[in-house]
Amino acid sequence: MADTKEQSKSALKKAEKQAKMAAEKAAKAAKQATLHIGQGKKTDDIIGITTKKTEDFSMWYQEVVLKSEMIEYYNEISGFFIMRPATMYIWNVIRNWFQERIEDMGVEETNFPMFLSSKSLEKEKDHVEGFAPELAWVTKAGDKDLEVPVAVRPTSEAVMYPYYAKWIRSHRDLPLRLNQWNSVVRWEAKQTTPFLRAREFLWQEGHTAHLTEELAGQEVLEILELYAGVYEQLLAVPVVRGKKTENEKFAGGYYTTTVEGYIPSNGRGIQGATSHCLGQNFSKMFDITVEDPNEKGKHINVWQNSWGLSTRVIGVMVMIHGDDKGLVLPPRIAKIQAIFIPVGITAKVSPEAKEKHYQKLDELKLSLKKVGVRVDADLRDGYTPPWKFNDWELKGVPLRLEFGPKDAEKDVVSYARRDTGEKGTIPIAELTKQVPELLETIQQDLYNKADASFKEHRLVITEWDKVVPALDAKNVVLIPHCLSIDCEEKIKETTKSNADDNQDVPEGKRAPSMGMKSLCIPFEQPDGLVKGETKCLNPDCGKMAEQWCMFGRSY
Amino acid sequence: MADTKEQSKSALKKAEKQAKMAAEKAAKAAKQATLHIGQGKKTDDIIGITTKKTEDFSMWYQEVVLKSEMIEYYNEISGFFIMRPATMYIWNVIRNWFQERIEDMGVEETNFPMFLSSKSLEKEKDHVEGFAPELAWVTKAGDKDLEVPVAVRPTSEAVMYPYYAKWIRSHRDLPLRLNQWNSVVRWEAKQTTPFLRAREFLWQEGHTAHLTEELAGQEVLEILELYAGVYEQLLAVPVVRGKKTENEKFAGGYYTTTVEGYIPSNGRGIQGATSHCLGQNFSKMFDITVEDPNEKGKHINVWQNSWGLSTRVIGVMVMIHGDDKGLVLPPRIAKIQAIFIPVGITAKVSPEAKEKHYQKLDELKLSLKKVGVRVDADLRDGYTPPWKFNDWELKGVPLRLEFGPKDAEKDVVSYARRDTGEKGTIPIAELTKQVPELLETIQQDLYNKADASFKEHRLVITEWDKVVPALDAKNVVLIPHCLSIDCEEKIKETTKSNADDNQDVPEGKRAPSMGMKSLCIPFEQPDGLVKGETKCLNPDCGKMAEQWCMFGRSY
Repeated sequence: MADTKEQSKSALKKAEKQAKMAAEKAAKAAKQATLHIGQGKKTDDIIGITTKKTEDFSMWYQEVVLKSEMIEYYNEISGFFIMRPATMYIWNVIRNWFQERIEDMGVEETNFPMFLSSKSLEKEKDHVEGFAPELAWVTKAGDKDLEVPVAVRPTSEAVMYPYYAKWIRSHRDLPLRLNQWNSVVRWEAKQTTPFLRAREFLWQEGHTAHLTEELAGQEVLEILELYAGVYEQLLAVPVVRGKKTENEKFAGGYYTTTVEGYIPSNGRGIQGATSHCLGQNFSKMFDITVEDPNEKGKHINVWQNSWGLSTRVIGVMVMIHGDDKGLVLPPRIAKIQAIFIPVGITAKVSPEAKEKHYQKLDELKLSLKKVGVRVDADLRDGYTPPWKFNDWELKGVPLRLEFGPKDAEKDVVSYARRDTGEKGTIPIAELTKQVPELLETIQQDLYNKADASFKEHRLVITEWDKVVPALDAKNVVLIPHCLSIDCEEKIKETTKSNADDNQDVPEGKRAPSMGMKSLCIPFEQPDGLVKGETKCLNPDCGKMAEQWCMFGRSY
Repeated sequence: MADTKEQSKSALKKAEKQAKMAAEKAAKAAKQATLHIGQGKKTDDIIGITTKKTEDFSMWYQEVVLKSEMIEYYNEISGFFIMRPATMYIWNVIRNWFQERIEDMGVEETNFPMFLSSKSLEKEKDHVEGFAPELAWVTKAGDKDLEVPVAVRPTSEAVMYPYYAKWIRSHRDLPLRLNQWNSVVRWEAKQTTPFLRAREFLWQEGHTAHLTEELAGQEVLEILELYAGVYEQLLAVPVVRGKKTENEKFAGGYYTTTVEGYIPSNGRGIQGATSHCLGQNFSKMFDITVEDPNEKGKHINVWQNSWGLSTRVIGVMVMIHGDDKGLVLPPRIAKIQAIFIPVGITAKVSPEAKEKHYQKLDELKLSLKKVGVRVDADLRDGYTPPWKFNDWELKGVPLRLEFGPKDAEKDVVSYARRDTGEKGTIPIAELTKQVPELLETIQQDLYNKADASFKEHRLVITEWDKVVPALDAKNVVLIPHCLSIDCEEKIKETTKSNADDNQDVPEGKRAPSMGMKSLCIPFEQPDGLVKGETKCLNPDCGKMAEQWCMFGRSY
């Protein structure tokens, strides 16, 4: 009898669990359906984010990028996204910042065709193997089959280098440094995510040729530092600079340097942007040579680099700074840095008094514009101040400036910070000084908060048993590693977690369960690794450790 | 006997002619082969343009765009071209100029996917018929066939408008004004020409929605005026503003406005850029409606526009201003506006004197930079001044500044204008004043010259028999026209010329032989057309003339 009771209790519990899961699934599907409204359908605005960042991170992210009007799903073809003006503004800030700096380095702009012949592609074997599964092939024009199909570029090494061979005739043609801003197509089989993984994305791709390895290497690092600058200085996102392992380097390249980010919500690492030294691999295949300036008659292959930064950067920024109210934008990349909202204009206020108040508000706005603040005022009729507060919070505007008759009486403007919610007042006489300072403070605080979180979750680990628990606790780990490809592959298998089986935790809340992969070999190495003494941390390996390597579950 | 003599004479003449033609063809083929050097091949530079603009215009054009390093042929896939830094600089000047102005109008930037589903495309019948023959179809990803093939956008109406239906919910969402900078693909069957007709080209495409026909119409003209500004103010190219006939309007649109240019060398007209009012055609197909603000419950379809300006503009500029020495760039779009070249530094000049002279030259250069002149100095060793003169002339730099010891003695800089060849000296004390003035003069003179030529070759014609001779004499013509599609098609047939048969004239020198088509109905109409009295000029037509219409042989 006792047994039966236990059994029925357990069966009941199981049924409850299943019902709970089914309900969760249904709720999720309903939400997803609301997000992916088809064209033509007109529904009322759903104001506000309905999923908590800590409850279901991936659903939260989808809601934020959609409702803040950064992204629209392209229903016609899966894996593609529409980038709306809120996105393009940020991308253009980044583009202009980076463009100015590479121009100073002497990099010139070019534009190569978007199609690739299979002939060129096949020249570098490792390269073609890396990209072949994701190539989109054009086989027809109008109703005629093409004699030779052409692929949409996944990256332009094979498009450009035949012409480097033509244009580089002497060491005086070096360095040749070209960059282009375009979109590329990689027909991913994996699940796509706005900004992070899309079948088409915007980027810049730089392709340069140098006389020596040293000159090429200098540029690789110079560009990497600019990529770090985009993250740290513009997006307030901390990154770790380092080198990719052999296993993770660019297909066909010599070595790859990278800036790596970290998403606190799920503890995953994310590749930020990569700057590759291609060595002489491509110049040998494409026959790009010059006469050695030090030895007449001797031909040497040039040293090449390629480097790219994509719209992915925007997704990383959204994931790190956003909160349950929506987007949180760092002031330096915000189209609107401060939004004025009139408050306290009740029915009791006379039309004349209202008119006068709005005039004052306009004066304040103009005074801020004059000192370079990107400021606007929300004077829409028919919306309450709280509705407007929510709307601008959703869109991530860093600073809200409230101005009502009571503020006017006291000669102040009230403010609320988007990042911390902190409220206060600024004397009108101080406005043009304090608002720019406050924006700068917000920028710094966003960075500092993200930096503290990344530092706290980057664990130096010297005991293998602590690795998986560390990952499950949303950390990335630094471990002594042999840097061999085999060992890394094994680690990926042995660090898979059971989190998936833990059905008590709702799907959206669960830690990722995949095995960890190497993120980079950080340039800044912890102490304590003795070459020839310290062993690779993987207990199945047995080789000596070469360097500290940062591993993590990752995007 | 006399007969036989005549016969053999005639046969000899014929043989001579054939031999001459064969020789010409062989020479042309050889030249073409030199221009299209494959990758990997390294040959010495061919300095200078070897074809005269008046001898073989199309060969001259090819040489200019290649040797000035604006363009490289993409040998891998025919009909595609590489745009080199010399081109991208100009495109970016245009882009920035235009972008600034449409931002002021409230147009925001967006980025839609490059692929189009056939489902969306098929919604507007005329539109799909217009573009279907030139669509590039992606049918495979990796080694898998796509379930549904997707086309690369030839233009983005069908990509974007499903989302306009989603985003536009109320008249408060109007106007919706979006623009994107991208490349589009039209797999042309016709012969391609760098800039003018390529299978992929860069452009901007604006897509807007308005509440009324009037508001849409205002924007159409505002944009057209910006397009005219790109030509007239930046590229020093005169254009005629007008409306396209029904026969030549945008596929699926309501009406098309256009700026039309003229190439003096062959007398051909060329479409410069078009600004379309789409009317309600697309909004009906894509169901883009709002509630009428004046009548509750009544839904009205929005009024839409689309407008585009492409890299074609650069080709028109090259064709008009270039000469037998190469490119001639208007100063406002020249990356280098003035080039300093040291002269008279003979072996007799001591190293100290040379050093001092170069220092002075550098000071002069900096003084010009400070006043905003884009100036550089060619201090390359191993090249003579005349070689450098040729090189910078080929590249179109508007102003050459020579500075030698003799100039230094007299406190002057010698100059040579690229456009006219005019030479003179400028006192050093006047340099920062006179050089900017001179550049502005060059800009104006280039425009005035082209404008005079276009005016001279835009003939108002009221006798049908004068039409073909006018075309053969490299004119475009303004004629009274009924504006009907049939009549226009007939005119295209009846105005073909016999120029092709005229084998005495070398191929490259012959006037184009195709029939004329309508270029536009100019907004500025000549006098003398009386509605209901003046007949359509086409003698086979018989209908009454509606307006003066500009016809020409054209690109």
